[in-house]
Amino acid sequence: MAKVRAAIVGATGYTGAEVLRLLLGHPGAEVGLLTSREPGAPIAETYRHLAGLCELRLDPFDPDRVAERADVAFVGLPHHAAMEAVSPLYERGMRVIDLSADFRLRSVETYRRWYGEHFAPALLAQAAYGLPEIFREEVRQSRLVATPGCYPTSVILPLAPLLRDGLVAPGGIVADCKSGVSGAGRGLTQDTHYTEVEGGLRAYKVTAHRHQPEMEEVLARVTGADVRLLFTAHLVPMKRGILSTVYADALPGADLARVRASLERAYGGEPFVKVLPAGTWPDTAHVCGSNYVHLGAAFDAERGKVVLLCALDNLVKGAAGAAVQCMNLVFGLDERAGLCAAPLFP
Amino acid sequence: MAKVRAAIVGATGYTGAEVLRLLLGHPGAEVGLLTSREPGAPIAETYRHLAGLCELRLDPFDPDRVAERADVAFVGLPHHAAMEAVSPLYERGMRVIDLSADFRLRSVETYRRWYGEHFAPALLAQAAYGLPEIFREEVRQSRLVATPGCYPTSVILPLAPLLRDGLVAPGGIVADCKSGVSGAGRGLTQDTHYTEVEGGLRAYKVTAHRHQPEMEEVLARVTGADVRLLFTAHLVPMKRGILSTVYADALPGADLARVRASLERAYGGEPFVKVLPAGTWPDTAHVCGSNYVHLGAAFDAERGKVVLLCALDNLVKGAAGAAVQCMNLVFGLDERAGLCAAPLFP
Amino acid sequence: MAKVRAAIVGATGYTGAEVLRLLLGHPGAEVGLLTSREPGAPIAETYRHLAGLCELRLDPFDPDRVAERADVAFVGLPHHAAMEAVSPLYERGMRVIDLSADFRLRSVETYRRWYGEHFAPALLAQAAYGLPEIFREEVRQSRLVATPGCYPTSVILPLAPLLRDGLVAPGGIVADCKSGVSGAGRGLTQDTHYTEVEGGLRAYKVTAHRHQPEMEEVLARVTGADVRLLFTAHLVPMKRGILSTVYADALPGADLARVRASLERAYGGEPFVKVLPAGTWPDTAHVCGSNYVHLGAAFDAERGKVVLLCALDNLVKGAAGAAVQCMNLVFGLDERAGLCAAPLFP
Amino acid sequence: MAKVRAAIVGATGYTGAEVLRLLLGHPGAEVGLLTSREPGAPIAETYRHLAGLCELRLDPFDPDRVAERADVAFVGLPHHAAMEAVSPLYERGMRVIDLSADFRLRSVETYRRWYGEHFAPALLAQAAYGLPEIFREEVRQSRLVATPGCYPTSVILPLAPLLRDGLVAPGGIVADCKSGVSGAGRGLTQDTHYTEVEGGLRAYKVTAHRHQPEMEEVLARVTGADVRLLFTAHLVPMKRGILSTVYADALPGADLARVRASLERAYGGEPFVKVLPAGTWPDTAHVCGSNYVHLGAAFDAERGKVVLLCALDNLVKGAAGAAVQCMNLVFGLDERAGLCAAPLFP
Repeated sequence: MAKVRAAIVGATGYTGAEVLRLLLGHPGAEVGLLTSREPGAPIAETYRHLAGLCELRLDPFDPDRVAERADVAFVGLPHHAAMEAVSPLYERGMRVIDLSADFRLRSVETYRRWYGEHFAPALLAQAAYGLPEIFREEVRQSRLVATPGCYPTSVILPLAPLLRDGLVAPGGIVADCKSGVSGAGRGLTQDTHYTEVEGGLRAYKVTAHRHQPEMEEVLARVTGADVRLLFTAHLVPMKRGILSTVYADALPGADLARVRASLERAYGGEPFVKVLPAGTWPDTAHVCGSNYVHLGAAFDAERGKVVLLCALDNLVKGAAGAAVQCMNLVFGLDERAGLCAAPLFP
Repeated sequence: MAKVRAAIVGATGYTGAEVLRLLLGHPGAEVGLLTSREPGAPIAETYRHLAGLCELRLDPFDPDRVAERADVAFVGLPHHAAMEAVSPLYERGMRVIDLSADFRLRSVETYRRWYGEHFAPALLAQAAYGLPEIFREEVRQSRLVATPGCYPTSVILPLAPLLRDGLVAPGGIVADCKSGVSGAGRGLTQDTHYTEVEGGLRAYKVTAHRHQPEMEEVLARVTGADVRLLFTAHLVPMKRGILSTVYADALPGADLARVRASLERAYGGEPFVKVLPAGTWPDTAHVCGSNYVHLGAAFDAERGKVVLLCALDNLVKGAAGAAVQCMNLVFGLDERAGLCAAPLFP
Repeated sequence: MAKVRAAIVGATGYTGAEVLRLLLGHPGAEVGLLTSREPGAPIAETYRHLAGLCELRLDPFDPDRVAERADVAFVGLPHHAAMEAVSPLYERGMRVIDLSADFRLRSVETYRRWYGEHFAPALLAQAAYGLPEIFREEVRQSRLVATPGCYPTSVILPLAPLLRDGLVAPGGIVADCKSGVSGAGRGLTQDTHYTEVEGGLRAYKVTAHRHQPEMEEVLARVTGADVRLLFTAHLVPMKRGILSTVYADALPGADLARVRASLERAYGGEPFVKVLPAGTWPDTAHVCGSNYVHLGAAFDAERGKVVLLCALDNLVKGAAGAAVQCMNLVFGLDERAGLCAAPLFP
Repeated sequence: MAKVRAAIVGATGYTGAEVLRLLLGHPGAEVGLLTSREPGAPIAETYRHLAGLCELRLDPFDPDRVAERADVAFVGLPHHAAMEAVSPLYERGMRVIDLSADFRLRSVETYRRWYGEHFAPALLAQAAYGLPEIFREEVRQSRLVATPGCYPTSVILPLAPLLRDGLVAPGGIVADCKSGVSGAGRGLTQDTHYTEVEGGLRAYKVTAHRHQPEMEEVLARVTGADVRLLFTAHLVPMKRGILSTVYADALPGADLARVRASLERAYGGEPFVKVLPAGTWPDTAHVCGSNYVHLGAAFDAERGKVVLLCALDNLVKGAAGAAVQCMNLVFGLDERAGLCAAPLFP
């Protein structure tokens, strides 16, 4: 079978580069085009770890050329810039997998409140939410997939089954999430300067992070309930990984066994989600570089709380890995293709 | 005035060594004796950073000798070992500052449930809880001070004023706490082996950490309410620092201004607790190596939650610094003596 | 073609576990047996990152059973323990790839001086030195391969061509090498306790490291000259990676162009060794998790010195990757099989 | 005695901020003025760790105002900018301690070759080189002190005594130096972006670093010999600290005892330089945050080489600490004032 031909639009950001890394090892796809706002040089000049592994040069973005050279475009641009690239590619009949926030929300109003104007609202309804463990069929049948935010994946995966199974209340949820620095991207800021990050730990955008409405909207869609969730993001001195600790009020009938059973029922057959043995807890180091997600759960009967823990690699399952997983589904490939490498530990 | 003569019992652990570091720079105290289970060698062989700065050798523990050579003993031993050292020193009339968990709780029953048998229950009632910002007078008048656990300090300080002022509910509190690795001590474990920690992040002892009953007991004592709090500890790849993110349900009348006013009223005159400007968030890197505590607060009106943030250095304000601060109070010295060094940043 | 069946003897050490990680992604090999001194549990209990990826349990070491279940044994044991496992496996006709120091040296006397008694001196002459870039034919024809020390690979690769081409003098060489902490293994020591490593940098075993005689012996063998080299090892606060900076006296006729040409001639056709563009320097982050080696060179005409830089991942090209590369050669597989994953960056 | 009044010109860079940190704890000095190219805000907005500890605002640079408000100016600006500030302050009769490279070299020609034009060449001869262990009297009698580069201090201190005592040859020296990232300053660059530094290790400016001519010139001045030294700088994933490993050819008569005796003779009476016990090696973690320098030495008789090791904190003894030490000398204070804090370990 002919390989799927992929283009990466915005190849010099970390998510674009991670898509490239994964596709270089994909048996059924090949990368034919890389674009950048600063075209000209080989990608291996920006990313020296690709020395000798990828000879492609950076091209300017031209939708006709992308459509001619590729079957699918991965869009690794910031929001707003993403929608400007997605629209013309979609119009040319391409399959598009967008890693930005531009097509994650269904509600134009919510988008406007958190991100500003949306220029392609009609496309919102076309976009599948690229979390195959929950929206597999939608992804399969869509020409436009919006991969979830890295934090939302880590919160939605553990919560969705428990909400659906009526084990936890949809209100009063707390998601305390911790991320490595690659989640902040490759752009230079004082906050991600080495000496300002190393050895420190801090929260940021407290009660004001854009991933909160995404979590609430998607969980409401999945469960039919009015989910209210308070999300706090923290920056941890490590390169990759998200650990989310989610606290929810137990509903009557819930106990540890039922909570674990709910997770195992939901994910027992999933290739990339592992429910850890009771009493063991996810560690971001144990999923580093991989598409795997580790889940754990605890139950505090005295305080009536369920504690859920979720570890994933923000650049893989939190971004580029999810994107490749969706590409596999869209093109009818083995969902696991190119994504089965074991985590890099230590 | 003659200097206070101090002994450090258990000087090779990190908390003992940190007491030593602080006392080496203290204008009103001097260290006359260091003890260890493995006596003989100079402390500077165990801790090379003291080369040329401290000539003391490690002595075996002998309560008579400690009482003869020192006015105050800092006890930096594990629980159980600590009470065995504290009792004979206390009996000899010494001032004792214990950094272990052995005299932090008032309830013998709670101690028994979480730590095992207590061999000196009569002393529990004699012990002041070494958090001067809340128990200053008790500390001043006590011959036995138990410094708080590192996590409890970071949770009690932000919560106590809000509970007292009726701004948050005493039930349903979540304390999501993150600590650097020095909190786990100097003993060797697979979990603190460099390659197993670096680049990773994990929770541990979920719903089963011994600092939870300490938080609940002390907060109940301070506020008179039945405080119920779920605490989760996380290990972060950094050496020093605790960041605690505390979530509580707002009570009617609460808003951001009142929350901040409550904190500022409580700590405006405190030398070591700083309430950060609105919209800025504590960072453990900003208190590293110092006795300072940084506090921040946010309010989510839609979800009815208060978010409190607290950063401190677990070895200083979370252990040795609190101990020295209490020593200053016990001996009538300037409370700030030896503790005013600015944090080490970057 | 039937897959090569592999056993890993000493699977719980970092090098054994890394062989396992690589073979899990190898298209032409499969792991049938893992042994440990503490058998019984599944390997995924020791290494949680393998949850759901490897169901094997740890077996006790039994040479008959190993020979029955596997075509090749990877031996990831400490020296001395390694030779005790290698001998019976070799006698049973197996192919053996030893990752310890036991069969790296040709000279029994040198072995004795640095490591103690050798119990299988006859096997020394049978062992190929597992550096395919230099000893490819020997490796191909051998039943026993000793993979090089991690430091020696990083020093021999850049030096060998220059010595052979007469561009640098064989005496007075300095190899200043820096390694991540995984090189020290999984065993617990104060020196590899997180809080004693993080944020610090130190040399160790100065003028007394066992890899120095290995470097000198192998380079002498390759070049025919009496190579004298002073090697210093340093421990760097990172998990993986070696960067070696090698200083040698330029011989008449040498200049930067000739030095680079020598390296490019030697490695231009090699799949895993990349000579970086002039003026760019190897970074261990750019080879992390991969079998690739990055080389750079500088020339100081005024001081008559050549500076060579080499970066590799100590657990991959410095150990397990070299072992798999040698297995590929021994069994006539594509030398690159299972080893082509791009480095994990960032 | 009245306190010395200090101004910090360029207070928002890391070296300026470190001078501030040290002076906040100095018993005989006080900071009266901070300047910045972006004046207006309190310094505690840029450096949150100073919350509540320093109320000063950033002023624009005005030499009259500086001279009016301060007895001494610390200049923490980049080269060229530094000389433009130093000249007018010096002309106004102030004592000036410059932390840049502008007045470190004696040779205008060397300055021009490595840094570009010099606009105040007459001042070069007035400047003392701020390494009190070697130039104490010059510093004492000077109104302009240029503190050494961080790398040069770590190379000159171990080498100078051995060169003076004829134990090592002045030619063919190799200085392999490794630095934490704070040495690169607070300015944003891709090379100091967290995710590009963490977990990696690389050399930079190989054979082209500006500190090399400084090392050669100062060592030649001290020893009278034509010192030829090849210096390589490396960036290590840690915040503070330099470890330098220096290789020199032993001269006849040299052995380990004589090498150690030479170091001990030179530094036995020095307050900040510690020669470690034989067989132990400096670690940057053991000097972190302090003005101390740790030295070690090894001898390889077979290869005729001396290996010298030096650890220091690049921001303290490598910059701000040296500056304060020089201020103490210039004003006749106790040389150790404000600099005796023990290192922060762990």
